[in-house]
Amino acid sequence: MSNTETTPFNGWAATAAGAPLERYSYDPGALGEEDVEVAVEYCGVCHSDQSLIDNDWGISRYPFVPGHEVVGKIVRMGPQVRGLKMGQRVGIGWYKGSCMHCSSCISGSQQLCGTAQPTIIGSNGGFADRLRSHWAWAIPVPEQLDPALVGPLFCAGSTVFNPLLQFGVKPTDRVGVVGIGGLGHLALRFLNAWGCEVTAFTSSLNKQDEAKRLGAHNVVASTDSSALKAIAGTLDFLLISANADLDWPAMLATLRGNGRLHFVGIVPSAIPVHVFDLIPQQKSLSASPVGSPGTMATMLEFCARHQILPQVEMFPMSKVNEAVDHLRSGKARYRVVLDASQ
Amino acid sequence: MSNTETTPFNGWAATAAGAPLERYSYDPGALGEEDVEVAVEYCGVCHSDQSLIDNDWGISRYPFVPGHEVVGKIVRMGPQVRGLKMGQRVGIGWYKGSCMHCSSCISGSQQLCGTAQPTIIGSNGGFADRLRSHWAWAIPVPEQLDPALVGPLFCAGSTVFNPLLQFGVKPTDRVGVVGIGGLGHLALRFLNAWGCEVTAFTSSLNKQDEAKRLGAHNVVASTDSSALKAIAGTLDFLLISANADLDWPAMLATLRGNGRLHFVGIVPSAIPVHVFDLIPQQKSLSASPVGSPGTMATMLEFCARHQILPQVEMFPMSKVNEAVDHLRSGKARYRVVLDASQ
Repeated sequence: MSNTETTPFNGWAATAAGAPLERYSYDPGALGEEDVEVAVEYCGVCHSDQSLIDNDWGISRYPFVPGHEVVGKIVRMGPQVRGLKMGQRVGIGWYKGSCMHCSSCISGSQQLCGTAQPTIIGSNGGFADRLRSHWAWAIPVPEQLDPALVGPLFCAGSTVFNPLLQFGVKPTDRVGVVGIGGLGHLALRFLNAWGCEVTAFTSSLNKQDEAKRLGAHNVVASTDSSALKAIAGTLDFLLISANADLDWPAMLATLRGNGRLHFVGIVPSAIPVHVFDLIPQQKSLSASPVGSPGTMATMLEFCARHQILPQVEMFPMSKVNEAVDHLRSGKARYRVVLDASQ
Repeated sequence: MSNTETTPFNGWAATAAGAPLERYSYDPGALGEEDVEVAVEYCGVCHSDQSLIDNDWGISRYPFVPGHEVVGKIVRMGPQVRGLKMGQRVGIGWYKGSCMHCSSCISGSQQLCGTAQPTIIGSNGGFADRLRSHWAWAIPVPEQLDPALVGPLFCAGSTVFNPLLQFGVKPTDRVGVVGIGGLGHLALRFLNAWGCEVTAFTSSLNKQDEAKRLGAHNVVASTDSSALKAIAGTLDFLLISANADLDWPAMLATLRGNGRLHFVGIVPSAIPVHVFDLIPQQKSLSASPVGSPGTMATMLEFCARHQILPQVEMFPMSKVNEAVDHLRSGKARYRVVLDASQ
């Protein structure tokens, strides 16, 4: 088959806000010279898939195929693809391409490229038999990692791993994680292996034992103001993976000198920051997106060394609507993955 | 004279909110074992002196002697003083002591000590013939720097120099300074010598030529939204030395990837931070106080090498009320210093 020939891709598309996904065939066009085509084996289901299905952000255009935590094998390659080979297993996450020549791309911060292409915005994603991506954004999966479980690392995992590298979290730091869900449960595993003292903040104290099993040394009720006061001035880094409005002055107060309150979740309201809460102890507030290709490769190497994988619930791709509803229910523990072979 | 004997100190005290300062004699008590006593030669007048005179922060207790940008010579030393000698010229800034044993102090971040003693809160400052300080907070003044001009470096200077060190500003960075006053005019000089591309943001474009003379390569009107849009996505670091509520989303938008909006001024209202304005380009927001003793010594060495000194207007100490009124008028260019010999 030449690069200009195409066969239709078969996926599951959202056709209206909140509607069940429907079987959908589409023409992917000619394969780009720098693109790989991947036969999907597994695809995670992320909260942002659900947000775009439901048009929570007001930017969805239908029909579109969700899915951006893809694991699969390369079945076609454009002539300009570098460093990959046919049959190789790769993962594709939130982005599937970037310009490769702007200052961000050329400096290895491709996740900051102003024209980076999100996998499922204005484009079809991985709830399908095949997906294409620029070669740089198709990240080789180490053999030591179970391909059925590795998908969520490409979005959820890279979102919480990225700030550890980018903002210089040290093994000697005391780090808190707020929100023990799809992102937070991976953050606990990363930070435990990172060498940190790890404190989990959760609104459901029935997750206490699980949080400890996942790597937390301490568990604090995120809505208990006296518990927050008891740990005031102790943390170096507080990672917010919850998507809720919390008591931000109390959260800032848990930090010690040079501490950082860091967001990877999109909280609904603006955070009211009083400069007086930052000045005396030189505190910072920041946020970040997913990791670059280089960061994802480093993450996978770290995961292979420490056998860090998400805790997932598997669904057959044919039951994608049950999988999305399970995520919507808030009961997923902790990440949902679709098996494309079923 | 033994260390337990004292002679009264003679200064100028605030006796009620906003009232003119009055001559005031007070007993400083016994000299601490680790303290130096300095004969004041010069003392800067800072906005926070005025804020405390006027009880703007609601914490002032009268009478008290303002003044925390002190230059003078050591005339007495307690038996445990280290590294200083009689007759040496030193400067004393916002703090005059800290515990010296907490984790912040022992790590060289004494400005973050929870019990650091502000020079003029609950204590008398440098609008006086003498002032005492812990030896660690009395910083030797290099001979290359004019003692009449060096005082403002100990508060205004260290406040804008500290974040350059603490938050890793690089000579290759593009840096903006918002507010060209007592702090901002020093920031322009520091950043020019630091090697950065320097952009001054000012609400009075009649300061344009002065900003360039002080080291700015570019000048932008801080209230002109189209001018702000024109430089969107260009800056690595934006230092806010203004004490005003500005268009913070527009200011954040001037930053490029990994950029930082940093506050050294106390802005009146909470800053509404939308996580979506930080996430895509991994931006940070932060704030910091004055520098540690080590940072102040490094600053003075840098100032001596580059002959960086504040631009000041001198007043005799006997005309302290005229000096404070001049500062209140907003017309000071850019820093006011009292000469204690007059």
